[in-house]
Amino acid sequence: MKIDAERLKKRMDIINNIAVTNDKGMMRLALTDADKKARDFLREWMEEAGMKVLIDDIGTMYGYTEGSDTSALPICSGSHLDTQPNGGKYDGTFGVMAALEAVCTLKDNNITTRSPLVVVNWTNEEGARFVPPMLASGVVAGNFEANWVYEIKDKDGVSFINELNRIGYLGKKENRLEKAKFYIEAHIEQGPVLEKEGYSFGIVNAALGITGLDVTVIGEADHAGPTPMKLRKDSLMVASEAMLKVKEFVANYGDPAVATMGTISVYPSSKNIIPGETRFSIDMRYDSSEGLTELENKIREIIEEVCKKQGVKCEIERYWRAEPVNFDNRVIEAIKISSQKLGLPQKVLTSGAGHDAVFINRIIPTGMLFVPSIGGKSHCPQEDTNWEDIVTGVKVLAQTIIELDK
Amino acid sequence: MKIDAERLKKRMDIINNIAVTNDKGMMRLALTDADKKARDFLREWMEEAGMKVLIDDIGTMYGYTEGSDTSALPICSGSHLDTQPNGGKYDGTFGVMAALEAVCTLKDNNITTRSPLVVVNWTNEEGARFVPPMLASGVVAGNFEANWVYEIKDKDGVSFINELNRIGYLGKKENRLEKAKFYIEAHIEQGPVLEKEGYSFGIVNAALGITGLDVTVIGEADHAGPTPMKLRKDSLMVASEAMLKVKEFVANYGDPAVATMGTISVYPSSKNIIPGETRFSIDMRYDSSEGLTELENKIREIIEEVCKKQGVKCEIERYWRAEPVNFDNRVIEAIKISSQKLGLPQKVLTSGAGHDAVFINRIIPTGMLFVPSIGGKSHCPQEDTNWEDIVTGVKVLAQTIIELDK
Repeated sequence: MKIDAERLKKRMDIINNIAVTNDKGMMRLALTDADKKARDFLREWMEEAGMKVLIDDIGTMYGYTEGSDTSALPICSGSHLDTQPNGGKYDGTFGVMAALEAVCTLKDNNITTRSPLVVVNWTNEEGARFVPPMLASGVVAGNFEANWVYEIKDKDGVSFINELNRIGYLGKKENRLEKAKFYIEAHIEQGPVLEKEGYSFGIVNAALGITGLDVTVIGEADHAGPTPMKLRKDSLMVASEAMLKVKEFVANYGDPAVATMGTISVYPSSKNIIPGETRFSIDMRYDSSEGLTELENKIREIIEEVCKKQGVKCEIERYWRAEPVNFDNRVIEAIKISSQKLGLPQKVLTSGAGHDAVFINRIIPTGMLFVPSIGGKSHCPQEDTNWEDIVTGVKVLAQTIIELDK
Repeated sequence: MKIDAERLKKRMDIINNIAVTNDKGMMRLALTDADKKARDFLREWMEEAGMKVLIDDIGTMYGYTEGSDTSALPICSGSHLDTQPNGGKYDGTFGVMAALEAVCTLKDNNITTRSPLVVVNWTNEEGARFVPPMLASGVVAGNFEANWVYEIKDKDGVSFINELNRIGYLGKKENRLEKAKFYIEAHIEQGPVLEKEGYSFGIVNAALGITGLDVTVIGEADHAGPTPMKLRKDSLMVASEAMLKVKEFVANYGDPAVATMGTISVYPSSKNIIPGETRFSIDMRYDSSEGLTELENKIREIIEEVCKKQGVKCEIERYWRAEPVNFDNRVIEAIKISSQKLGLPQKVLTSGAGHDAVFINRIIPTGMLFVPSIGGKSHCPQEDTNWEDIVTGVKVLAQTIIELDK
């Protein structure tokens, strides 16, 4: 089976030229005009491949190809076309385009599966515009209510439903993916393992759990000039101390524990006022549910201790919790068989990132395959994957679909 | 001489009810609609008192009362009506309203000075909307060019000249205050000294110098999940370490040295991305020029050392430098004589905050008087001064104008 690598490359390039930053990063935040453009292209290619395109009430796009058995449940594959601000060109996009290319490849080779095949583009996976991430797969998996998602607002106060409507991708609830035989998602690794160990793809057996906290440190705003250093209750200084202690603790907790303070803001934010309030987020991840809870509890303790010692108040709120998951053994097995057939050495690894597959795993037997990330980098313009690995990933995905169809 | 405290209170309340935050703070950023409203009231009151109102090309308002000697240079007094975001009700406003009330009091008592008297409202003293602060007094003192000021943009990209025009306060260059016999500014202390030592007003002999730095720490953006803690180049963690070390150093340098990190932002600012870039400001103050330079050099060294150790780059840019100043002895003497006549105990102190008076001191013999700040607080809604002290401040100011006129 031969992949039409040229077609794949051409389409990738089209998507990745829609909204490029000065740093050559991608800027396709969910439900923006740039996201709409990418969706329009995807719809066009789906239709070109003879797929029936359905949109659900969260804007997720499904491209259906009929199978030979009208009673069979579908085999689904996809990812997301939205990106981080100044993000990379394969994160999400690879998974959608790989699924599209795999289905097109089967068609080119006159292979009709028993099961219908569905190519999926989930809405707002990144959570960069509308927080939290994985909104569409979260609704399908029963984690979120559609009405709750509709009211989420971006930084400028614009609501999800407004934007979904505006770009013309508000579909019907009955189009949601409710039942399927299998879901398989191809993605970039976003970590350094595959490249470092010399593999061109990886089999994902599990994904780390994630907990997210919003922390507010409440000190006292005051004038930057006449307020002696020793009389200050500077919330930013206290937050800095707390953040460094959290970092220290998590670094010593050992891999795969990570904690990231990705956002911070101060109030009133004037160069000559001592910050009265400082807010920051903590994203922490671990591979066991108990470990993740312990990590969260200890981090809360560290912050509260620092604040108490410095005589300021703090508020800590959890904005996110996703349990660690183990993927379906049948999907893992199918990827193994496929790579054997293709003569590719196998590497099994755990995902550090959250993915739509993590949510979908709750309702549909699910698996993932990774391609390497150069230097382990992602969520930045330097994110990249060797083109041969991209092609290999699509080959493995196409073969896995055949195996899963058996 | 009796102050019309009721009139003063009524007018203060009008100004301070224009734009109030939920915390009961003031929100009259320079050249906003709220600032315009305050200006319109001031103009009305100036005209009511028979003053001729002139506006200069930076929007500064001057209310002229004629003296008996047409050849005499004017005696000027004022401050600013713009506030910090969520700022206090007397910072700036007190100085403008005290000057207005002092002139009205002289008029009520049929006292005509030899010199013309001028009440001044300087534009954008706070520097909270348009950075740097003291733009109008800076232009009058020859520190800034008007055209440079015109192009300064606020956080939303709106230029100074646009807003000055929009609110209808673009006047003429020839109206700038070029020559005067004396300038005296009444202000709240913004520090704890007067209250702590039990004085109802203070004589300001000098003002601390200020240096401002913008720091950018350049690490590497990366995914919050699969990037091991030990492989990160997290700009926010490095910035936190640098900020804490700066704070530590300055606290040990001894009073009146202060350093404030009042603003901070990260890029790309997403909860699941390691911050690639972190920017923060440092406002540092000291009472000698050499000490201020030493402080700046040492702070630069500290930041560069931390960044070097952590393997990230940094850029440090100076956005502000104001030398420490000594106020004019004749003005200091006139305030002393006035307070003796009023039977008030005297306290001489140094200003930690920047003021328009600091710039005006370069071209006009200048002085300042302070009233106490409760708890030393300012630039926040808790900023307050006992009403009796406000009235005392105006009395001293009116008497000082008479002394300076001799």
